[in-house]
Amino acid sequence: VRVDEIGEFALIAQIEALLADEAPGSASLRLGIGDDAAIYQPAPRHSLVITTDALVEGIHFRLDIMDWADVGYRALAANLSDLASMGARAGAAVVTLGLRPGLLVEDVLAFYHGLAGLAARYNCSIAGGDIVASPAAVTVSITAFGECRHERDGTPRCLRRDTARAGDLIAVTGRLGASAAGLSLLLAGRTDAADALIRAYRRPEPRLREGSLLLEAGVRTGMDLSDGLAGDLPKICARSRVSAFIDGRALPAPAIVKERFPDTWLDLALRGGEDFELLVTFPPALLGQITTALAAADLPPLTVIGHVEPPGDSPLWFCGDDGQRRPLSPGAYDHFGHQPPDRGATI
Amino acid sequence: VRVDEIGEFALIAQIEALLADEAPGSASLRLGIGDDAAIYQPAPRHSLVITTDALVEGIHFRLDIMDWADVGYRALAANLSDLASMGARAGAAVVTLGLRPGLLVEDVLAFYHGLAGLAARYNCSIAGGDIVASPAAVTVSITAFGECRHERDGTPRCLRRDTARAGDLIAVTGRLGASAAGLSLLLAGRTDAADALIRAYRRPEPRLREGSLLLEAGVRTGMDLSDGLAGDLPKICARSRVSAFIDGRALPAPAIVKERFPDTWLDLALRGGEDFELLVTFPPALLGQITTALAAADLPPLTVIGHVEPPGDSPLWFCGDDGQRRPLSPGAYDHFGHQPPDRGATI
Repeated sequence: VRVDEIGEFALIAQIEALLADEAPGSASLRLGIGDDAAIYQPAPRHSLVITTDALVEGIHFRLDIMDWADVGYRALAANLSDLASMGARAGAAVVTLGLRPGLLVEDVLAFYHGLAGLAARYNCSIAGGDIVASPAAVTVSITAFGECRHERDGTPRCLRRDTARAGDLIAVTGRLGASAAGLSLLLAGRTDAADALIRAYRRPEPRLREGSLLLEAGVRTGMDLSDGLAGDLPKICARSRVSAFIDGRALPAPAIVKERFPDTWLDLALRGGEDFELLVTFPPALLGQITTALAAADLPPLTVIGHVEPPGDSPLWFCGDDGQRRPLSPGAYDHFGHQPPDRGATI
Repeated sequence: VRVDEIGEFALIAQIEALLADEAPGSASLRLGIGDDAAIYQPAPRHSLVITTDALVEGIHFRLDIMDWADVGYRALAANLSDLASMGARAGAAVVTLGLRPGLLVEDVLAFYHGLAGLAARYNCSIAGGDIVASPAAVTVSITAFGECRHERDGTPRCLRRDTARAGDLIAVTGRLGASAAGLSLLLAGRTDAADALIRAYRRPEPRLREGSLLLEAGVRTGMDLSDGLAGDLPKICARSRVSAFIDGRALPAPAIVKERFPDTWLDLALRGGEDFELLVTFPPALLGQITTALAAADLPPLTVIGHVEPPGDSPLWFCGDDGQRRPLSPGAYDHFGHQPPDRGATI
């Protein structure tokens, strides 16, 4: 059986089963495969949040629509976003590059320039890496480490995917669909670097401040949006054994996306990938203190977009302008003509 | 300027300079680019040893001379060897795979099977990873984390490359040249899996027990041999600003290598890569307690192969059967018709 015949999720399930049997690991691994990041706790009051993310030229990034500095920025941003989605503080990262023949030194340095600016802004140390030859395409693999605090019982304090409960509100940071709208413009040949949508695609902001603040305000369920709301929310539903209701009228699509994409803005907001906003759920009673905490930190408020329900016939339910409740098919918007790989999951 | 025109080391130096300027990182990074691994110390008595290593099909491994389980084993072994070379204990690892089209599920599972057996033996948790599509060749990128203790002043206790002093003895664990000899046999079409030399190439043992024990016995300078003695020892010389004298008559080449490779055994022992033995230097006064400690742990003794000298005209000096002292050119044995990339260094 070929890997592309069974798909990524079935393959990961088989790997997970093999590892559970043959390399169960030590008790210091507190959270393993299946969330945005793993948690490794070698000492009682010390936990490390670990995430890794790989990108391949032509599959995950294209140099006709961004430059090498953007590639470096985005590669680190995706990892920092995974730390943000756990509520962790950024610590360090290692960077592995596979370089195809003929690549220019200035391109490699531009990659690091884009990455370094973001690293410096979040006090993330670049601890090293590896550089190898790659025959056909540039590959980037980054592993990032973050720090988290602990609950009173000594368990790591973090945002997880398996803690959503029926009755929780569902909310997101920022706006949805801007990155996918920017990608659409770029694929159509627009390249204005000052365009807010193009910038949203090329330079997404990892929500490290928001993640940490939401965690301290009591939120315990969250992930980052890399595969789009309709692609990622089902992952929380599956791991928490719940379903989710989304009110399409509440989705925070930017006005400019609605203007420039009058026919597809809802799809972009629901299924557009790589917004790297945080998706969280929490009991309604927490909403007041969350709002206060965000305002006190001079951060934009969350947008409540739905609520968690007991498991049902569909993982996702949706209600649009017509007020009709109906099942929503899970999945991401298909930009490149194929289903984008799941970029947020550790295997 | 193309990357292949300036070479890996010049590129890494430029990246290092860029990062020092644009992303200096936090004080919690205690040891960065330039050793076998980095040390990240987020809390006063807690340090994490971090290493990463990437492999590309056709460049770093070939499936005509090993199977997928060997590839998985070796990929993790190279990382655990980097932890061993710091004297660290294995903790956890994340595994990223780039899979080319048409790869079989059973091959991926065989890869993990080979890796899992080794991980379990050293209590290394597999904390996750990422799986992506790769257009032309399978790529493997592993990042491993280990634990180390601390000196009385709170600094991380580890084996480093920059602490060799003139007068130190130079010694290695195990034997030299067996892995390269096994590779020669495999490239000549021999495939007997029970052959000790072929096994040395396919299933090298990371020297985690030895590294930890040498550190506790007082050794502070060390690395692992991935690019061969003449390829790796100059790295210690460069970082410690010393030169090294090797006595060829003392090199521990296995008898079977001398028998089967009567003309090239010395080259295999001096320049054969991927033995993954430890190369250490230490003051002569430590030799007795090191020997006692290894014997008490039922481990083979070190072999002293030379000594450290003040910096001279050549980083390496050599004396063979003729008793003549002469400069030795640095560099690894060239199996695949090109200089193998440096696999032990963090960028």
